Amino acid sequence: MKTDVQIAQEAKMDPILEVGKRLGIDSDDLYLYGNYKAKIDLGLLDRLKDKEDGKLILVTAINPTPAGEGKTTMNVGLSMGLNRIGKSSISALREPSLGPSFGVKGGAAGGGYAQVVPMEDINMHFTGDFHAITTAHNLISALLDNHLQQGNELRIDPRRILWKRVLDMNDRALRNIVVGLGGKPNGVPREDGFDITVASEIMAILCLSTSLSDLKERIGNILVAYSYEGEPIYAKDLKAQGAVALVMKDAINPNLVQTLENTPAILHGGPFANIAHGCNSVVATKMAMKLCDYTVTEAGFGGDLGAEKFFDIKCRLGGITPDATVVVATVRALKHHGGVAKADLGTENLDALTEGFANLERHIKNMASYGIPVVVAINKFPTDTDKEVELLKDLTVKAGTVAVICDVWAKGGEGAVELAKVVVDKIEESENKFHYLYDDNKSIEEKIETIVKDIYGGDGVDFTSKAKKKLKEISDLGLDNYPVCMAKTQYSFSDDPKLLGAPTGFTVTVRDLRVSRGAGFVVALTGDIMTMPGLPKVPAANNIDVLESGEIVGLF
Amino acid sequence: MKTDVQIAQEAKMDPILEVGKRLGIDSDDLYLYGNYKAKIDLGLLDRLKDKEDGKLILVTAINPTPAGEGKTTMNVGLSMGLNRIGKSSISALREPSLGPSFGVKGGAAGGGYAQVVPMEDINMHFTGDFHAITTAHNLISALLDNHLQQGNELRIDPRRILWKRVLDMNDRALRNIVVGLGGKPNGVPREDGFDITVASEIMAILCLSTSLSDLKERIGNILVAYSYEGEPIYAKDLKAQGAVALVMKDAINPNLVQTLENTPAILHGGPFANIAHGCNSVVATKMAMKLCDYTVTEAGFGGDLGAEKFFDIKCRLGGITPDATVVVATVRALKHHGGVAKADLGTENLDALTEGFANLERHIKNMASYGIPVVVAINKFPTDTDKEVELLKDLTVKAGTVAVICDVWAKGGEGAVELAKVVVDKIEESENKFHYLYDDNKSIEEKIETIVKDIYGGDGVDFTSKAKKKLKEISDLGLDNYPVCMAKTQYSFSDDPKLLGAPTGFTVTVRDLRVSRGAGFVVALTGDIMTMPGLPKVPAANNIDVLESGEIVGLF
Repeated sequence: MKTDVQIAQEAKMDPILEVGKRLGIDSDDLYLYGNYKAKIDLGLLDRLKDKEDGKLILVTAINPTPAGEGKTTMNVGLSMGLNRIGKSSISALREPSLGPSFGVKGGAAGGGYAQVVPMEDINMHFTGDFHAITTAHNLISALLDNHLQQGNELRIDPRRILWKRVLDMNDRALRNIVVGLGGKPNGVPREDGFDITVASEIMAILCLSTSLSDLKERIGNILVAYSYEGEPIYAKDLKAQGAVALVMKDAINPNLVQTLENTPAILHGGPFANIAHGCNSVVATKMAMKLCDYTVTEAGFGGDLGAEKFFDIKCRLGGITPDATVVVATVRALKHHGGVAKADLGTENLDALTEGFANLERHIKNMASYGIPVVVAINKFPTDTDKEVELLKDLTVKAGTVAVICDVWAKGGEGAVELAKVVVDKIEESENKFHYLYDDNKSIEEKIETIVKDIYGGDGVDFTSKAKKKLKEISDLGLDNYPVCMAKTQYSFSDDPKLLGAPTGFTVTVRDLRVSRGAGFVVALTGDIMTMPGLPKVPAANNIDVLESGEIVGLF
Repeated sequence: MKTDVQIAQEAKMDPILEVGKRLGIDSDDLYLYGNYKAKIDLGLLDRLKDKEDGKLILVTAINPTPAGEGKTTMNVGLSMGLNRIGKSSISALREPSLGPSFGVKGGAAGGGYAQVVPMEDINMHFTGDFHAITTAHNLISALLDNHLQQGNELRIDPRRILWKRVLDMNDRALRNIVVGLGGKPNGVPREDGFDITVASEIMAILCLSTSLSDLKERIGNILVAYSYEGEPIYAKDLKAQGAVALVMKDAINPNLVQTLENTPAILHGGPFANIAHGCNSVVATKMAMKLCDYTVTEAGFGGDLGAEKFFDIKCRLGGITPDATVVVATVRALKHHGGVAKADLGTENLDALTEGFANLERHIKNMASYGIPVVVAINKFPTDTDKEVELLKDLTVKAGTVAVICDVWAKGGEGAVELAKVVVDKIEESENKFHYLYDDNKSIEEKIETIVKDIYGGDGVDFTSKAKKKLKEISDLGLDNYPVCMAKTQYSFSDDPKLLGAPTGFTVTVRDLRVSRGAGFVVALTGDIMTMPGLPKVPAANNIDVLESGEIVGLF
């Protein structure tokens, strides 16, 4: 069987100018990175402002399991499937993070015959957006430590610095560090640490900004520290925003690539789906909606995290109205939610499937509650039995919608033609009653309680004393109107990764809160949230190679 | 008066495909980054291997002073001047480092009407080469710390790790740090630090590699640590070289841009001129020599550091034969070498000029000793008096060569037409007797002594006990045949930055040595060498801004 990278390297790509031309994009609005990648001038969005928006489909999933669900693969497949039934369509996706490529084998640009290409570039430096974010973030850090060193006029308390450094690398040794050692010429000693670049607030800001001026203002508003007197210190107090904007001036333009079937895809931004909102940029999604009749987008992790934030943060802050939700599931993953161990997932087990379906069912109910139609996409695996597939279809109908079997990994767009038809029909026959889960003017506590009760199915929320103190600080900063970004395990509806299926009778503990003042949301932290991954015992990097011929091995 | 960035943003650039076409480069060999930057496929060098090489001119300078000499500006001006007298010419330059842009105002792509463009991109992310090096370097660090964490099979001694981390940022607080804090899941605590990216051995390797395979082998040979038993640990022991090569696969291709007068320029690599050799890449220089009759290249700092390393490291390891050297000086800088304070440099002072000329005279003698012709280029300043200029010309004639007055900042190529004619004449009338300063088979001590006596004009070398121990280690590793890379202050021929002019009667103290095993040289450290700069009290970043129109202010 061919690997993803082999399939991708055999792709017959169209010149990206050609892909752009089919979308009506003038070559003057495309900034090429070789023949197959381009940035689209952000100004195009303004020039298209009077054009009617196309429909927007969110692809989300059940709670992820070790069995794999294939959310990005399904997204790419559905977009190609829509194209096959004569609809102009485009994928709006996140850019992958570079660091994790060296940890566990596997790319983040789809799989099999449902990939975006050139995948080996997309998974490496791509158009440099993440490097720009790394630089921008660490520039603020350097300005901050320089301020401490040069007399500390702002009276920044080195014990209350909120702004860590970032690298796009899985590097656990950088999680907790001490900087500024070595005496007077070498800085002020203090505790610090590195997060991975995708966890940077600048990533979230990039994904929520509507223009360079908006980005600059948001950068200036980042809360970086408190003074000895407890006063908030913002990035603008360090006069950082202009230089950061210069660093980000190209990164703010969305990136155009194509699928293996030469349909267009826009990849732009990729914030963490725990401490940030896990969606591609607002400008990319908006631009996609101007360019095609159907935009297929995604959000990180399962529907409880990614979709909820997509609706309540991205759509709210970006003024975007979605038209349908597709929930991806697999028979295998549902059996895992029903209690089957990974090794036994290849064996037919109707009881476990019925048991595990509860996870999907809650996601269906949750997604439907936003007022737009929901379709279930079953990513087909060779081990699925006919009985399992029929059972899953029946259960889904009982849950009020329809499940479509898809085979996009092996068949590309052809494997999602039926899904495409069903989704289009649902959109055409439904009235769009989209609404957010909660109102801006609720308190932060109320917003969190609403999410926990209405989406997670929990009984309520416990706030630690630390969290209560932070709620007070946030209120003092006048930020009660911000939406909430939940940082929670992706494996369960609850804050306990072991509670699979559709747990009930639990409460969620919020142990801390953080303000992403520039991005414009409050992060509620539950459990241990990792913002800097590590490498495994045998890192993928050990087996990666590139030959003089350009052939790449060991990566994907 | 217009600023550099204003002049640059008014440039009438040719499409880079057009610039390439004039050089005979097929569009298939150009990988575009927008319309005005491109990477040239490294394979072109092989395809042109039977073509005769053009002439190679090195532009170097007197020891730098706060008055400024304008070496890159002169390089660009000379290349444009050669073009104006009907010679096909090209600049082969280093890429600027991003970090320092936020410290002290000023770009590194020439100045006035002698710049390479688009300068605002060149001074920022350019084509991402330095970001690739940062990633590649820190990947090795992550693999190393992960090895410590996962059982340390190689028995790496955490107290003897030679491989630091890097960022392209002026950030003194990262010079000395402790990593791996926070308990068992978060790594093994140890001392560490960050250098600026240009100080990475991977930068030096990029600049000395002749192919992707060569690069991979050199990466594998990097000496990263010693084991508890004192055995050397190489990057290949961490199985890092394949993944690093993948990260570097695009960075190895040279970058094509143009000057303000649309002549071609190749910018590629930019290693530190103290702990590394300070020259652009071997492949870029070789490619330039295949493409044009005249290539004008540069080396960091003054002739004692940059030119010596250019000849004895880059030309030696790259198999390159240069044809002439241009030494850049200014009346102001020479008066500074003659003891005049910066504030008084605008006042005529013939005695100080005569006194300071000793610095230029020694550089002329040194450069001539390599067996190729030497020409002095005087970068004209408005405050230079006729008497000063005449005196300087006379002194230069007495020193055995000729000084040409140039005005490239204000006049571009027109300001270097005479210089171009003189240099061409010198090359055509001279027999090329180029030779290195020392033989490979001398010992490391002997090589250092030769440099100190014959180039610096010193009496001899003192090795500290630490340095002596390192000499033994280097010998034990079998690396006596490596050339030496001197890390010394750039401000003086000696190791004391305050000894201006042409000091005598001094010895140089070598306090430590390092092996750049992958790059292929031994670094001799004298005095305090800074490998991570800091930001000044008022960083340039504070005043930088980019407007929605694209206009950039405060940067250059």
